[in-house]
Order: sequence, then C-alpha cells, then structure tokens
Amino acid sequence: MSYKDNLLKIDAYVAGEQPNKTDFIKLNANENPYPPSPEVIKAINAFNGEELRKYPSANAVGLVKTIAAYHGLKPENVFAGNGTDDVLSLCFRAFFNSGKPILFPDITYSFNTVWCEILKIPYEQIRVDENFNINPADYRRENGGIVIANPNAPTSIGRDNDFIRTVLDENRDVVVIVDEAYVDFGGITAVPLLKEYENLVITRTFSKSRSMAGMRLGYAMGSADAIAAVYAAKDSMNSYPVDSVAQAAGIASIGDEKYFRETLKKVMDTRERLTREMREMGYDIPDSSANFIFAQHKTLKAKDIFEFLKSKDIYVRYFNKPRIDNRLRITIGTNEETDRLLKALREYIKN
Amino acid sequence: MSYKDNLLKIDAYVAGEQPNKTDFIKLNANENPYPPSPEVIKAINAFNGEELRKYPSANAVGLVKTIAAYHGLKPENVFAGNGTDDVLSLCFRAFFNSGKPILFPDITYSFNTVWCEILKIPYEQIRVDENFNINPADYRRENGGIVIANPNAPTSIGRDNDFIRTVLDENRDVVVIVDEAYVDFGGITAVPLLKEYENLVITRTFSKSRSMAGMRLGYAMGSADAIAAVYAAKDSMNSYPVDSVAQAAGIASIGDEKYFRETLKKVMDTRERLTREMREMGYDIPDSSANFIFAQHKTLKAKDIFEFLKSKDIYVRYFNKPRIDNRLRITIGTNEETDRLLKALREYIKN
Repeated sequence: MSYKDNLLKIDAYVAGEQPNKTDFIKLNANENPYPPSPEVIKAINAFNGEELRKYPSANAVGLVKTIAAYHGLKPENVFAGNGTDDVLSLCFRAFFNSGKPILFPDITYSFNTVWCEILKIPYEQIRVDENFNINPADYRRENGGIVIANPNAPTSIGRDNDFIRTVLDENRDVVVIVDEAYVDFGGITAVPLLKEYENLVITRTFSKSRSMAGMRLGYAMGSADAIAAVYAAKDSMNSYPVDSVAQAAGIASIGDEKYFRETLKKVMDTRERLTREMREMGYDIPDSSANFIFAQHKTLKAKDIFEFLKSKDIYVRYFNKPRIDNRLRITIGTNEETDRLLKALREYIKN
Repeated sequence: MSYKDNLLKIDAYVAGEQPNKTDFIKLNANENPYPPSPEVIKAINAFNGEELRKYPSANAVGLVKTIAAYHGLKPENVFAGNGTDDVLSLCFRAFFNSGKPILFPDITYSFNTVWCEILKIPYEQIRVDENFNINPADYRRENGGIVIANPNAPTSIGRDNDFIRTVLDENRDVVVIVDEAYVDFGGITAVPLLKEYENLVITRTFSKSRSMAGMRLGYAMGSADAIAAVYAAKDSMNSYPVDSVAQAAGIASIGDEKYFRETLKKVMDTRERLTREMREMGYDIPDSSANFIFAQHKTLKAKDIFEFLKSKDIYVRYFNKPRIDNRLRITIGTNEETDRLLKALREYIKN
C-alpha cells in the first residue's frame, strides 16, 4: 500500500482560462473592467505595515461596523469573511444541520454541491424552467434550508422581492440564503426584508461590483442569532479573520459611494449596448441584472463561437454542461473591449 | 419549529484576549514583537491597487516559485494558502481518506480535532509523556496518517530529524504532516528529508517568524503527488488563491533574508534571557525551540500568576485544560516588555 492510495481524487473546479499572453480581452471571470476606488488604493498604499506583526482585528470590528452602517443594520447583523466562498461555506456549516435536504436550483453557483458533500449535508437540485426561471412553488416541500443566488449565475436573471418573499413565507422554519454577489448591477436587494424575516441571510462580495477580486472579501447579513452561528462556525475552524490590509481596503471602498455608483453605471450602460447589438445579430439573451450576459445564438453553436473568439484573443466562458452547453457567459468589459467583441462576433456571422 | 433549532451550537476556539486598552503588554498570541521586513511594507505600499479588479494569480505562481527556490525545491512541491489553518485543513482533506484513524499528540495544536470532526476523519490522540515528549514508538500502529507539530505547541519542545525519520520510516504508507509553524526560532527543519520521503508534508506560516500574522499566508511542501492533492482539495472548495497583496508581501518577505535572520536572533536571545531568569525564580521551563516558553512554577499556581500579570496589564496565555492547567504559555516580546514581565514576576514572588 502507498500513501498515494488515499490522496484526494476529484475533478477540480475549472475557473475561466488565464491565457499566458498580454494582449487579450478577458471576459470570462466576471471581473469588473474598472479599478477599485482610488480610496481603496490609497488605503493599501498608506497601510501601516508594522501592524502586520499582530493578528487582525478579531471579528473585523471596524469593517463590520462600516458594512452595517452602510446597510442600516447593527454590527451584530453582519459577518465579514475571506470572500463569498469562505462566507457561504461557513453559512452552510452554521445553518444546515437538520439532516433534511437543502434545496437550490440545478443551474446556479457550482460550489453548493461541493460544500454539501464535504459537510455531508443532503441536498436536492431543483430544476429551473426552460427560460432558466426559478419557480417558488418548487421550494414548497420539506427541506433543511434554501440557497438562491439573486441575480442567479450564470443565467444573469434577477428576481424581485415578491419572489423572495414567497420563498421566505413558505419556509419560515429554515434559513434561506440569498446570494447577492451580483445585485449591485441592477438587481433588487432583499436587504429591506431582513427586518421582517429572521430566517433570511444575504451574502455579498467585494469582488465584482467593488472591483476587488484580487482581495478576499465577502460578508453575510442576517438576524443576530443567525450571524452568531456563522461566527461559531468560523471560530471553531479558523481562529483569525479577514487580513488587516483587506479590512482597511474594504472600509475605504464602502466610503466612496460616488465612485461606486459611477462605475456600476458604466458597466450597466455597456451591458445594455452589448445586449441590444447582440440581439440584433440573432442572439437570445435574458435581461441581465449582473455584470455578464448569458447568450445563445438562434443558429450558431456556442462552442464554435467560443473557439472563434479565442482565436481572436477574446476569452468568454463556455460551460460544457447539460442544459447550458449552447450558451456563452460573457462578462461586461470596457467600451473598447466591447467594440472589439462586437466586431469579432459580426465577423463570425459573416463567415 | 424554528430555523434556530438547526443553527450550529459549538464551543468556539478561544484565542488570546484582546484587551480594549492601549498600554498593555500582549504576550498571549505568539505574535512577533518586531515588524515585518521593510521590504514587505514597501511591497504593500507600492502595490498597484488597480490590479485588484482581477482575481489573484491562479495558484499564486510567483509566490510559490519564490518559496520553492528558497527551500531548494521545485514549484510542484509547494502549495501556498491563506494561512496555516487554511493549508492544514486542505491537507487533512487531501491526505486522510483511508477511513483509518489519524494520530496526533494529545497536547498539540487544537484545531486538529475540529477538522477531523468536520471532515469525518477518525482520529486518536496519543498521550505525550509527563515531560511533554512525543514517543515515536506510540505511532507504530495502524493509522490513516500522522500530524506532528515540531516544535510542538504549546509545549515549545523541538525534536531533531532522527525523531522525524523514525516516525516516517515506520509509517511509509501514510502521509506524515510536520507542522513547522515555529521552526525558524531554533527548531530543526525536516526539509532535507523531503528528498528521501515522498510521504512527508511540511507546513509553514508567515505569521510568526516573518511577523505577518495580520496577513493570511502559509504553505505546504511535499512530493508532487501530495501537493497535487492539496491543489485538488483547494480547487474543489474555493476557486481563488491567496490575495494579490499578500502574494506580493510574501515574496518581499522571503527576499529579505538578512532582516529575517536578525529578527529571529533578537527573539531567541530574549528567550534565552527570559528562560534563564525565570528558572532562577523557581520556574520549570522546557528548552524552547519556538517564540514562546511553557512555564510552571515549583510552588505558585499558574492561574494565580496569570491573574496577577493581567492586573499589571501583562497578558500571557493560560489554558484551563487537563495536564497543562498549571502552566503558562508566554510569548517572547521585546527586551523592554521582557524587563516589565520579569519585574512583575519578581514582585509576585515577593508577595
């Protein structure tokens, strides 16, 4: 026998390609095309590095207060973690201990199943309809919790609060997580519902709308009881919080609302233009509430378009998965990148 | 029924106290009393914040190369993660899949049991002897893997490579993790054994000897097969690596060997002085290979000393746990902090 017999063997998550070139357009990782607020850069470049010898502020106190104030909540309603992946996995551990299956759509963020398997949480993937819509009626069954991304990924479809409210009303006895990673790009947030529903927990990330993917910064909002359970999950596994530089950068980001709004508007304006022009070329594209679109051409194959764009040094995302294998997920880039993308798409149609 | 019925209820890990004052001496978290290299501070303060809009380098390529070169290894032998907690938990998931119990000392880093419980890995805690020594013969039994901290915490005791070699020779068919979080403070590293033993994996952190506890930076070294399994564990759970600022800071730290060695020497010199003077006061202290000592007085009670020091605004670590509840773990501070500590200890003996 060898130690190799018991090494983990799994299919790794495949992130968007990172080409080893410099002149290419990268629209495959839902990164923001604009830099973070100058205040963020200032906070990092003025960071007192001598402080690094000490562990970070326990529970990221300053950052949590800033996030809470921004959303009109109390600090006890906020947990800050090392990115949404960290926050969501701690939430799974904190909330889903009933032994009953938790529910989430079959087409959604792909890590849900992984965490369930690691934490031995039973789960059921609920089929979205042929237009990728989530039907609240499908979540009206015994369950141990619910996870919905709103806007959903990779579909880009955002739903309103009547939808979230229906799910919450029908599932009062479990935690419903609403992952709002993309909500700032025109989605409708469920934050106002936190006052009414103790079982609602909302997660957010700084990676997309705040242009801070290079940091690891995310947070959860919910009732004091729910958030306390997330802290318990964290404290039991990992003794130290978000790193000190990231805490300072996060606080600075939230402080610059003007820049934030301007950047979001630029991304959304470009998204509307891209959607309009691609629809004119024969693409079916659901209205997006995110910083990406989910496109299918009426006759051309997604995989072929993907390969053609790659040959033009334009990288978009293609998923070789059932039900979505004829669609492309295209991140919204700058206007110049979008011009080049549209030009290439036109060229492909002509050939 | 309420959603509250299924929230996680656990005793959280209790980290060293963080008093809400400014003028106190904090010797309870094994933090380095000296700041990180000026090169680290420069790297952070010169960091190109615009880059943050993008996800970090996949697999922390630059940092991994730097670490590998430093230790005379290949990049395929190194995995960099978000602190030792992150790295160790991924190692547990990567290596310990046999279903047989893994072995580690009863007195050691306290998260081992937590990860085993989360990942459903069976385990046995092997009793260290009355002098806190680990006996290799106790690890000569069927097992699914072994985890040894060397130097061990909180005992501070370091062992040589004959000891590690014995454990490895007798356990060729499982992975043996040697956690070298404290090794730079005069311990003996097992890195040279990596050439001989494919089943050896060594973990390190930037938190202690490199004064970067405020970052989240740790790494593992091992055979290409073992390290590939750690990447698989990471990629399956969490798509993005160490944050970009931390990668830059880590590279800068490794680049400044001179500062590193000078700082280590200062800490070790202070440790020798503190040990000598406390022994003269009647303390039993094992020779430490770490940046802390583990002290017991021949007549005075640890808990009482702990409380007295606290009343003098000096915070050390007391563990209310079987076998070690009459000992104090005292982090090595600056020379000035050590003077104040010694003065307080003398004062307590006089009373």
